[in-house]
Amino acid sequence: MGVYLDNAATSYPKPIEVAKSIYDFMINNGTSSGRGSYQKAMQSDFLVYETRKLIASLFNFNNPKNVIFTSNITESLNLALRGILKENDHVVTSSLEHNAVWRCLKTLEKDRNISITKVSADEKGYTNINDVKNCIKENTALVVFTHASNVLGTIQPIKEIGKLCRKNKIPFLVDAAQTAGAYPIDVEKENIDILAFTGHKSLLGPMGTGGLVINCNYNINPLKSGGTGGDSSYEYQPNYYPNKLEAGTLNVSGIVGLKEAINFINKETVEKIHDKEKELTKYALEELKKVKDIKIYGPKNNEDIVGVISFNIKNYKAEDVAHYLDTKHNIMVRAGLHCAPNAHDLINTKSIGTLRIGIGYFNEKEDINKLVTSLNNL
Amino acid sequence: MGVYLDNAATSYPKPIEVAKSIYDFMINNGTSSGRGSYQKAMQSDFLVYETRKLIASLFNFNNPKNVIFTSNITESLNLALRGILKENDHVVTSSLEHNAVWRCLKTLEKDRNISITKVSADEKGYTNINDVKNCIKENTALVVFTHASNVLGTIQPIKEIGKLCRKNKIPFLVDAAQTAGAYPIDVEKENIDILAFTGHKSLLGPMGTGGLVINCNYNINPLKSGGTGGDSSYEYQPNYYPNKLEAGTLNVSGIVGLKEAINFINKETVEKIHDKEKELTKYALEELKKVKDIKIYGPKNNEDIVGVISFNIKNYKAEDVAHYLDTKHNIMVRAGLHCAPNAHDLINTKSIGTLRIGIGYFNEKEDINKLVTSLNNL
Repeated sequence: MGVYLDNAATSYPKPIEVAKSIYDFMINNGTSSGRGSYQKAMQSDFLVYETRKLIASLFNFNNPKNVIFTSNITESLNLALRGILKENDHVVTSSLEHNAVWRCLKTLEKDRNISITKVSADEKGYTNINDVKNCIKENTALVVFTHASNVLGTIQPIKEIGKLCRKNKIPFLVDAAQTAGAYPIDVEKENIDILAFTGHKSLLGPMGTGGLVINCNYNINPLKSGGTGGDSSYEYQPNYYPNKLEAGTLNVSGIVGLKEAINFINKETVEKIHDKEKELTKYALEELKKVKDIKIYGPKNNEDIVGVISFNIKNYKAEDVAHYLDTKHNIMVRAGLHCAPNAHDLINTKSIGTLRIGIGYFNEKEDINKLVTSLNNL
Repeated sequence: MGVYLDNAATSYPKPIEVAKSIYDFMINNGTSSGRGSYQKAMQSDFLVYETRKLIASLFNFNNPKNVIFTSNITESLNLALRGILKENDHVVTSSLEHNAVWRCLKTLEKDRNISITKVSADEKGYTNINDVKNCIKENTALVVFTHASNVLGTIQPIKEIGKLCRKNKIPFLVDAAQTAGAYPIDVEKENIDILAFTGHKSLLGPMGTGGLVINCNYNINPLKSGGTGGDSSYEYQPNYYPNKLEAGTLNVSGIVGLKEAINFINKETVEKIHDKEKELTKYALEELKKVKDIKIYGPKNNEDIVGVISFNIKNYKAEDVAHYLDTKHNIMVRAGLHCAPNAHDLINTKSIGTLRIGIGYFNEKEDINKLVTSLNNL
C-alpha cells in the first residue's frame, strides 16, 4: 500500500471504526439530525450531540452547544473571520498562516477595509510574544494565529498570545489544523477564545467535517442562513448556538465517523499519540540530516514542532523529487507551497516550494527509513 | 426497519453502492483531491472530476468545471445569493421558499439593503408566470425560485420564468432540493442559469454533499476564501471555476458516494424513478383522501407535484399524529413547518404546521397502505 507521509493534508489510514461506523449509520439509520421527531431521527440527534460532547471534552471545554460543525476548517476560519471582523477593523496574524486565513483576510481588506498586521517570525518560524504585543492597536478586533505552521511545523506561543488577548479584551482565534488530535489542547489553560479544528487530519475522522469551539461571548455573525429544524417562522438565524451558525442538513454520517475517531483517540490518549509522533519526528530529523545535499527548514528540535518537516534537495526540483518518490518507491509526500505562501517568505522558498512530510500516528520508523533510503538513491 | 416516509428531508435507504464506495475509498485511498501529485491523489482528483461530469450530464450541461461542490444545498443557495446580490439590489422570489433562501434574503435585506418581492401563489402553490413578469423591476438583480415546494410539492413554471429572465438579462437561480434526481432537469431547455442541488435527497447520495451548476457568466463572489491546491502565492481566490468557489479540502469520500448514487440513477434512469414516484404519489393521494377527517393541502393532481404531500387530521395536532405513527406503527413522517414558513401562509397552517410525507424511489404501495391503515386507527 505504499508509504503515506502526507498526513498534514489528511490523515491516512484512519482507525477502521471510522469507515465502519459511517457505513453502519448509512445502512441502519441514515436520517437527518435536528429535523424529525421520530426515534431514528432522535438517535441521529443523539449521535451528533455526543460528538459535540467528545470534542468539547477533548479540548477541556464544558459547553458542547458551543461546538459548531462545519464542512472543513477553511469554512470554520471563514466563519470566525467574516463573522467577527467589521468595516475598518484591525487584525493581527502570524507570518505562517495558511491561505484559509490569509486569503480570507486579504479579501476582507478589499471588501471591508480591514487592516492586517503580520507579526514577524524568524526563519525557523518562531514568533516572539513581544512582537505580538507591539502589533496591538486601539482598533484591533481580532488576533488569529495558527497553532503550528503547516510548512515548518513550528508551534506558536498560543498560551502567551491568549493571555495578551484576554488582557486587551481582544478575541483570540486559533487555527488548530495541524494540532487538534495530535497535540494536547486545553482552551482554558491556553486562553483560546475560538478554536478552529478539522476532522480529517489528526482527529482521524472523515473529510467533510470540521468546526469551531466557541469559548467566549464575542458576537460571531453567521456565514450562512437557512433551516435549523426549529424556530422556522423566525425570519433570521436563531441567536443561540449551535443553530445560529449551522444552517442546513449536517453531514451526520461524517460526524458519526468523527465520533468514532475521537473515541479511538481517547482510548489511545492524545498524550500517547503526541509522544509517538514526536519520537518519529525526532527520528526523521536525525535521519534526514544524513541525506546528501539536503536542506531542512524550520526548527531541528522536535520539542518545538509538530510532525511536519519541509526540506529540499540541492539541484533537484521539489516536484521532481516527489514524483520520483511516488513512482519509483510508492512514497507519498507533498511538493509546493502547501497553501501557505507567507511561510515560504521566511525561508526564501516562495519560487521553488519545499518537499513536505506529514507524520501521522500510523507511521513507523520503517517509513522514515524507506524515505531516507530512497532519497539517498536519488 | 419501519416505513420511512421522510424522503423530502433526506432519502433512505440509499443504493447499497453508496455506502460501499465510501467505505472502499476511505480504506483504500483516503487522500485529498487537488492537492498532492502522487498517484493516489490523482486518483482522488479523477473521482471528483468524474462526479462533476456525471452531475453535468444529468442536467444536460456540458461544462463539468462549472459544477461546484458544497456541503449542502443551503450552502449552495447562500453562495449564489450572497455571491450575486449587492447593495440595493432587488430580488424576485416565490411564496414557497425554504428558509435556505428566505432567511438568506431577509438577512441580505438588513445587511445590504436589498428589496424582496415575493410573487403571490394560490393556496395550491401554483404561481402564475404573469405575476412573476409584473414583479420585475429596473434593479432586479436575481430571480430565485424553488423548483418544487417542500411543503405542497407544487412544481413551479421554471421554463417560463427562465425565459422571462433570459429576455430581461436577469440571472435565474433554481432551488432543486426536491427535484434533482427524481424529476428530469435540463438546464438548457429550462433556461436555468444556476441550479442548486443537494446530494442526499433524490440524488440518493450521502449527507455532506451538494453544489451548484453554473450555466451562465454572471459573476458570483466566493462565500469562503482559502486554499485551492494551486496558485498558492496569489492572495485571493483564483478567478476560474471550480476553484474560485471551492476553498479547503473537499468531502471526497462523500463525493465518491454521490458518484455511485448518480451511477445508480443513470442505470435506473431519472424517467423511471420519476414515473414510479409519480405513480406512488397518485396512489397516496387517492388513498389518503379516504382517511376520515383528513385535509390534504396542495394540488390533488400528481402531474403537478413531486412526491411531497402535506395534510392534517381534524382535532389532532400534527406532532401528536407523527408521534403516534412512529411509536405505534414505526412509520416515519414529519410534522411542523418543514423550514418553509411562507408556504404555510398560503394554506393557513403557520400556527399548526402540517404532517408531511416525502415519497422516495424505494417506497412501495405497501408503505402507503400501512400509513393509511394506521391513520384510520388513530
